[in-house]
Amino acid sequence: MAWTTNEIAKHKDASSCWVIIKDEVYDVTEFLLKHPGGPGIILKYAGHDATSAFVPIHSPDAIQRNLSPSQCLGRLADTKGGEVDVQMGHTQDEMRVEREMKRRPPLNQILNLTDIENVAKKVLPHPVLAFYSAGTDDEVLPIPQSLARNRRAFDRFFFHPRVMRPVSICDPSTKILGYHSSLPIFVSGAAQAILGELNITRACGKANIIQMVCTTDSAAALPSQPLFFQLYKVTDTAASTKVVQEAEQLGYKAIALTVDAVVVGNRERDVKSLWVLEQQEGKTQVYFEWDPEATTNLFGSSAVNRRNAFDSDLSWKETIPWLRSITKLPIILKGIQCVEDAMLAVEAGVEAILVSNHGGMVFSLPPLEVLHRIRQQQPDIFDKLEGGIRRGTDVIKAVCLGSKAVGLGRPFLYALSAYGEAGVTKMLDVLHREITISMRLLGAASIRDLTPEMVERVDWEPVRQRNTKL
Amino acid sequence: MAWTTNEIAKHKDASSCWVIIKDEVYDVTEFLLKHPGGPGIILKYAGHDATSAFVPIHSPDAIQRNLSPSQCLGRLADTKGGEVDVQMGHTQDEMRVEREMKRRPPLNQILNLTDIENVAKKVLPHPVLAFYSAGTDDEVLPIPQSLARNRRAFDRFFFHPRVMRPVSICDPSTKILGYHSSLPIFVSGAAQAILGELNITRACGKANIIQMVCTTDSAAALPSQPLFFQLYKVTDTAASTKVVQEAEQLGYKAIALTVDAVVVGNRERDVKSLWVLEQQEGKTQVYFEWDPEATTNLFGSSAVNRRNAFDSDLSWKETIPWLRSITKLPIILKGIQCVEDAMLAVEAGVEAILVSNHGGMVFSLPPLEVLHRIRQQQPDIFDKLEGGIRRGTDVIKAVCLGSKAVGLGRPFLYALSAYGEAGVTKMLDVLHREITISMRLLGAASIRDLTPEMVERVDWEPVRQRNTKL
Amino acid sequence: MAWTTNEIAKHKDASSCWVIIKDEVYDVTEFLLKHPGGPGIILKYAGHDATSAFVPIHSPDAIQRNLSPSQCLGRLADTKGGEVDVQMGHTQDEMRVEREMKRRPPLNQILNLTDIENVAKKVLPHPVLAFYSAGTDDEVLPIPQSLARNRRAFDRFFFHPRVMRPVSICDPSTKILGYHSSLPIFVSGAAQAILGELNITRACGKANIIQMVCTTDSAAALPSQPLFFQLYKVTDTAASTKVVQEAEQLGYKAIALTVDAVVVGNRERDVKSLWVLEQQEGKTQVYFEWDPEATTNLFGSSAVNRRNAFDSDLSWKETIPWLRSITKLPIILKGIQCVEDAMLAVEAGVEAILVSNHGGMVFSLPPLEVLHRIRQQQPDIFDKLEGGIRRGTDVIKAVCLGSKAVGLGRPFLYALSAYGEAGVTKMLDVLHREITISMRLLGAASIRDLTPEMVERVDWEPVRQRNTKL
Amino acid sequence: MAWTTNEIAKHKDASSCWVIIKDEVYDVTEFLLKHPGGPGIILKYAGHDATSAFVPIHSPDAIQRNLSPSQCLGRLADTKGGEVDVQMGHTQDEMRVEREMKRRPPLNQILNLTDIENVAKKVLPHPVLAFYSAGTDDEVLPIPQSLARNRRAFDRFFFHPRVMRPVSICDPSTKILGYHSSLPIFVSGAAQAILGELNITRACGKANIIQMVCTTDSAAALPSQPLFFQLYKVTDTAASTKVVQEAEQLGYKAIALTVDAVVVGNRERDVKSLWVLEQQEGKTQVYFEWDPEATTNLFGSSAVNRRNAFDSDLSWKETIPWLRSITKLPIILKGIQCVEDAMLAVEAGVEAILVSNHGGMVFSLPPLEVLHRIRQQQPDIFDKLEGGIRRGTDVIKAVCLGSKAVGLGRPFLYALSAYGEAGVTKMLDVLHREITISMRLLGAASIRDLTPEMVERVDWEPVRQRNTKL
Repeated sequence: MAWTTNEIAKHKDASSCWVIIKDEVYDVTEFLLKHPGGPGIILKYAGHDATSAFVPIHSPDAIQRNLSPSQCLGRLADTKGGEVDVQMGHTQDEMRVEREMKRRPPLNQILNLTDIENVAKKVLPHPVLAFYSAGTDDEVLPIPQSLARNRRAFDRFFFHPRVMRPVSICDPSTKILGYHSSLPIFVSGAAQAILGELNITRACGKANIIQMVCTTDSAAALPSQPLFFQLYKVTDTAASTKVVQEAEQLGYKAIALTVDAVVVGNRERDVKSLWVLEQQEGKTQVYFEWDPEATTNLFGSSAVNRRNAFDSDLSWKETIPWLRSITKLPIILKGIQCVEDAMLAVEAGVEAILVSNHGGMVFSLPPLEVLHRIRQQQPDIFDKLEGGIRRGTDVIKAVCLGSKAVGLGRPFLYALSAYGEAGVTKMLDVLHREITISMRLLGAASIRDLTPEMVERVDWEPVRQRNTKL
Repeated sequence: MAWTTNEIAKHKDASSCWVIIKDEVYDVTEFLLKHPGGPGIILKYAGHDATSAFVPIHSPDAIQRNLSPSQCLGRLADTKGGEVDVQMGHTQDEMRVEREMKRRPPLNQILNLTDIENVAKKVLPHPVLAFYSAGTDDEVLPIPQSLARNRRAFDRFFFHPRVMRPVSICDPSTKILGYHSSLPIFVSGAAQAILGELNITRACGKANIIQMVCTTDSAAALPSQPLFFQLYKVTDTAASTKVVQEAEQLGYKAIALTVDAVVVGNRERDVKSLWVLEQQEGKTQVYFEWDPEATTNLFGSSAVNRRNAFDSDLSWKETIPWLRSITKLPIILKGIQCVEDAMLAVEAGVEAILVSNHGGMVFSLPPLEVLHRIRQQQPDIFDKLEGGIRRGTDVIKAVCLGSKAVGLGRPFLYALSAYGEAGVTKMLDVLHREITISMRLLGAASIRDLTPEMVERVDWEPVRQRNTKL
Repeated sequence: MAWTTNEIAKHKDASSCWVIIKDEVYDVTEFLLKHPGGPGIILKYAGHDATSAFVPIHSPDAIQRNLSPSQCLGRLADTKGGEVDVQMGHTQDEMRVEREMKRRPPLNQILNLTDIENVAKKVLPHPVLAFYSAGTDDEVLPIPQSLARNRRAFDRFFFHPRVMRPVSICDPSTKILGYHSSLPIFVSGAAQAILGELNITRACGKANIIQMVCTTDSAAALPSQPLFFQLYKVTDTAASTKVVQEAEQLGYKAIALTVDAVVVGNRERDVKSLWVLEQQEGKTQVYFEWDPEATTNLFGSSAVNRRNAFDSDLSWKETIPWLRSITKLPIILKGIQCVEDAMLAVEAGVEAILVSNHGGMVFSLPPLEVLHRIRQQQPDIFDKLEGGIRRGTDVIKAVCLGSKAVGLGRPFLYALSAYGEAGVTKMLDVLHREITISMRLLGAASIRDLTPEMVERVDWEPVRQRNTKL
Repeated sequence: MAWTTNEIAKHKDASSCWVIIKDEVYDVTEFLLKHPGGPGIILKYAGHDATSAFVPIHSPDAIQRNLSPSQCLGRLADTKGGEVDVQMGHTQDEMRVEREMKRRPPLNQILNLTDIENVAKKVLPHPVLAFYSAGTDDEVLPIPQSLARNRRAFDRFFFHPRVMRPVSICDPSTKILGYHSSLPIFVSGAAQAILGELNITRACGKANIIQMVCTTDSAAALPSQPLFFQLYKVTDTAASTKVVQEAEQLGYKAIALTVDAVVVGNRERDVKSLWVLEQQEGKTQVYFEWDPEATTNLFGSSAVNRRNAFDSDLSWKETIPWLRSITKLPIILKGIQCVEDAMLAVEAGVEAILVSNHGGMVFSLPPLEVLHRIRQQQPDIFDKLEGGIRRGTDVIKAVCLGSKAVGLGRPFLYALSAYGEAGVTKMLDVLHREITISMRLLGAASIRDLTPEMVERVDWEPVRQRNTKL
């Protein structure tokens, strides 16, 4: 069956959401809340052509794997008249991306994670980059403010390097929830799931790095490779129960309950990026109207999709006991943002917490600062940390302050986008080198030697110059 | 009767002040101190044509409503010779304004209050913009320093978001002096009265937002819509008594006594903006001489206008008892700037205080910092706060620190100037969305859940990047 | 008698120092250490033509008043061949100055001290500007660092304005060492003496502002006008005794002993400015060699001029008793830079101290900070303050912290250079307006009402934007 | 014998390392770890022509002195075809250097160390400059971040200058480990050894400044001139024993054991500078691949060169006793970076420590801050300090905080590069002048008078403007 754009355009919200991908029409209403990247980004293309946003970040079989045949509605009837120049693969933005891919420096000139990020930012399609680097609220290019604040937090911690300690043998490996990890880092699950993550899984498997994923689709995992499952609980508790038990059966080693995503943040950059794209393409007509209220309502008071919505009513009293009752796996709480909740998590008996401020709240304290406060106020609390890592020294600062390991999200995405699996491997090599060099210079032969006394938070403003070209 | 410009030019100060508006001549000597925007701006046009400054910000019937027939002196006799190109509606600045009005982005592309402000700053006539955004003393474009300091104050407060709290139902409404308010904000009365505020009143009435106004002319108010009256006490106490009693009879719900306007501040920008305007028009001759001493004297030692001048001799011992004796309405003190005066206000038994630094004193502490000190030193004091609000998170920070509500002034003016009543409604929608999203992300289902423990003032310099174009 | 440039060039140091002014040759060896501006600036022209540096800042009769006839050696024999284009009054720099003088804005457009400074910086000859604005050591344009640090110090102090206090009558006058002063300011003696200060004296006399001068040549003083004498003690104590007694006889009201000028600072800018000037004139040859060692030695170990050199061996034990023994006038110590010395000054019984860091030591604390420490540690010490004042609020901050009055140096020089006596009067008008407006806004009806509780030193970085054009 | 570039290119790593210098081929495999500048820089040219990097910073006889005849392999057979334009002395970079040498300002226009540095930065070949100014990790031009942080640390300390103290006689000399030093400074051994240091030694000998060198080749030393020997201990302890005993026999006065160089830092700038150079020369082909892992392994787990590698297993228990057992010379520990290690050094009985963060660890505390903490926590510890000195006031701040003397490294290199021995002498003159002027202005007649009470660390951000041209 063939559909006209006029017909498709009617299915433009969460009650009925259709999209066009490569001239095929799909009903994604059901899928909206299963989408690992969240429903927000799909809804922006509701009733429209989503090809340019879909193709660059999904594996070719993503549609088949996720949609039932009945949700594949048929072909597009009309080709939107004279707009043939905006066909898939030929938009101005796509041509720019192709050009930049050819100009990438060879991998052996990549010295650090910032080099990788710079390449990725050039080769990524505009809307994808906006999605990756979007912060919330008043974020602006080139660096969203929450991210900038997180990075600055690292710059405020200085080291007390120790000398005259044998470091010829230096081992940066550690254990995370009992599983071996070659470095005190892991792949955090936040954003990367929207990307075919097979290559990340493969590279991490070889390098003994643990990955936290948010789908149960982990074909690329090596037999012995531990994966953690990141759970977004929905209001339909039975559905979430099913997902958790599936994960346990598939061999996932832990459940990371996301506790800071009770509502979609205020992602203005996502919205604006589409307008920019349209302007680049030379169209003067803005062909959709973003309705932030609608998005809010989706998780708020709107009745329509409540059943599948992210659960806004998590609670200590009910959610943790429920999770314990349906799985034997260790529980991680992902998204703790203050000392008080870290203490409640300990009381609730969870196996780990993940300190992060990715959830969308602007002006939440940088995770490293939360860690610093936990260290000062509740030094017996164990945790992990996430956000703003760019250097091996950043990882070491977090470990010194008591974090067992540090989750990295964006850097893996950038490495993958820029150079594929080889990029991910390169990135892990860089981190290994930076971490071991720094451990030696600190007089630390093992992760155990990284102690709180080795870092000091100073009260002066860090000197941070722009990353200029040599 | 017709008047020559030479004749008119003689009436150029507070002892006799005439202005030309649309070729009609008016005696505004009496009106000077009734002018809600203060006499300063009128005096700058004393003896001259004030059309270009008057028209854009006043309703068409503003003259009839405020001047008696005897104060309408007649027509202008001469048309100033060759200066026909500077007629009303055809100055270069006015043509620029018309051009910019056509270029405004559609309302559905407005995502936040800064977007609105940016539009307003383009479509406002030069002298009006200067008046709105003028700070005092050493203020310079693009952001006056007091305002910049107020904004930075917000950036220094960080949140401790709480998780695992039910927030599917989230209610941002509150009560202000017992009256229902759909959000913890209100319209503060500072500057907007110079603008036909009917549209603001109408939009606020529909949205259940309380407005503080400084004239008794509130035809647009809905029957049940509570309005507060902002009082500038003059030295003629009988005159002020009459005004207050009029306000009570007309149904105003509270009297906000302005306590920080005992003298006109040092508004250099106002003055300079006129010179700029003249230069834009291609005139080389500066046709008036600003005499700051005269302005000072007006409220100081000059005998001429003392009777109607703002009262520079307010005191705790006399002013509050006088106000109590003439009205039963609750009393708000507007313009408290330090903890000590907040305590004196409590002792004096006033119903509310309004912490703000709009009064003209440069280097007074940002209101949020005053609030923070009150919270630390006198946590039982109730108050409101004003100044520098641009985001829902700003409002929430103030509420967390103990403010019942937050007054916004300029943002309403910008919204009105840019898009009329629809702009004001849009702005309230934006704030509603931002406040409820943030409340949910903080784990707060109601205003009561916003507690001091949720904010922390950090000692580092906030990262604030310029608002660049995407 | 006529002298050749070759002959003159031999007298190029402190042992024999000749200069050419308007084609006349003078022996200024004796005068070097009497020069109120210090010998350094003269020595830079030793053996050369000093016309361009001398003329703009001295009164026409300055030579006659200060040199004996025997020190006027005669005319210049040769006119330096082809260099006629560099005659007095026709250098490129002088032509620039003439041009800028014509472009000055009228006085009624001057709104503040920064406006005046900006005009002055345009109309001053290059070397004079360098001398005025020179700081020490690593100072660079546009603002020397010590000065910038002093200014920033003011920005860190915020006010606690008080409301509900009668301020219709507001009196900013005070007493300095018992003498009436219309404002809590005075003219500090540092640099201005090199300029014909008659106009400053005249304007201050009319405005009731006390002046501290460093010559005994005060013909312009009104009969009742109090002047303070700034003493640079030299190693020849008898000579200094004579100067002090002369001052007392002439009616000066106090002796301000300079205690922070035991050695000439490292004024690199002075030196560099000459090179710049030469380059502007199109000469490629650098015709003199600055020898900083020589300057140092002048006040150090070099035997030649020790007799007249500034005394490097001041001491509490000997210097104060000596001064007491030769004069009945009250003693001020000028150049106190820390709390410890402020206490020693009190113990030594001097009548006043002048906190300043003009003496040449880079990285000495900004005077306002010293005052703040004195206030905290030794609140019973009385003092005056100097440096970095640009606004009435700056003066008020210093007075709140306990300073009786505030000395201004450079601003007077700028006002004088830009507009002559009228400029000085204008500047005093501006300060009067700014001080009284701010006092009213602070709720202070008199200087007594300005208390330490009214200021607070904040720990955040001040927002200070560049002074952009409107 | 003549070698082809193809043959030479095979010897490209630490197992067999050949380089071409002026068309001669050398085997530097053995020499790699004797190279005072470390093996890293040589390895970058392994298998290639190193002429352009070698010539500018080595004395003509450096090869003969350091290599045995058997290590001089013979001539280069081929001249690389068409690349004759890149011959020694004719690369674009070398031509630039020649041009800049002619443009140097005369020495009498050099007023301070920054002037010298600016000249040096212009006349140094690109790769040499990169090596000198390279920091570690995220360092970027124009100022590496560790260096910038060190300099800022100085700016945060302010003085309390004392007045009324006799300072006509002012003596800045001191004793370092019992040896007379004309100033409280010495030449630190870090980087300069890679440069023919004869000129530095000669200038220091005349000026009575002690030098710390890292070779035993000190032909230029005056008979009575004390030199300290900087030891890089290698894993072959017998070899290090031999070197130390050689140094003692040759008359060196102390052994400075380098304790912060257990691994080569992450010198990305070194690597990148080569790419830049190649691009300047117009070549598109990157002809070598930097392998940071290889460099790491060199000092890490790689078996090949372990015997000669810097010892990564220094320890308090074994290293100090070993050193005591083989020499009677006093021991200095160079590279202490925290208070804890300073205390351990005292316990271990060493004669002096050298606080520095040159070792490569990014985000180690600026040495002055470490000194400040030692002063506060362990005021009885004696030490020296290194890093970021540019002004006499910097030296004085360190001395006030308890440092006996301050080591300068880069400034000597810059002075030497810019003006040879005369430049070094000039630099010492500048420091002498700056230190004595500042001492006098502080009221200090001798080094003993420089006390901790004279400095105060402020909590505000230092004002530091860019070094603009006048």
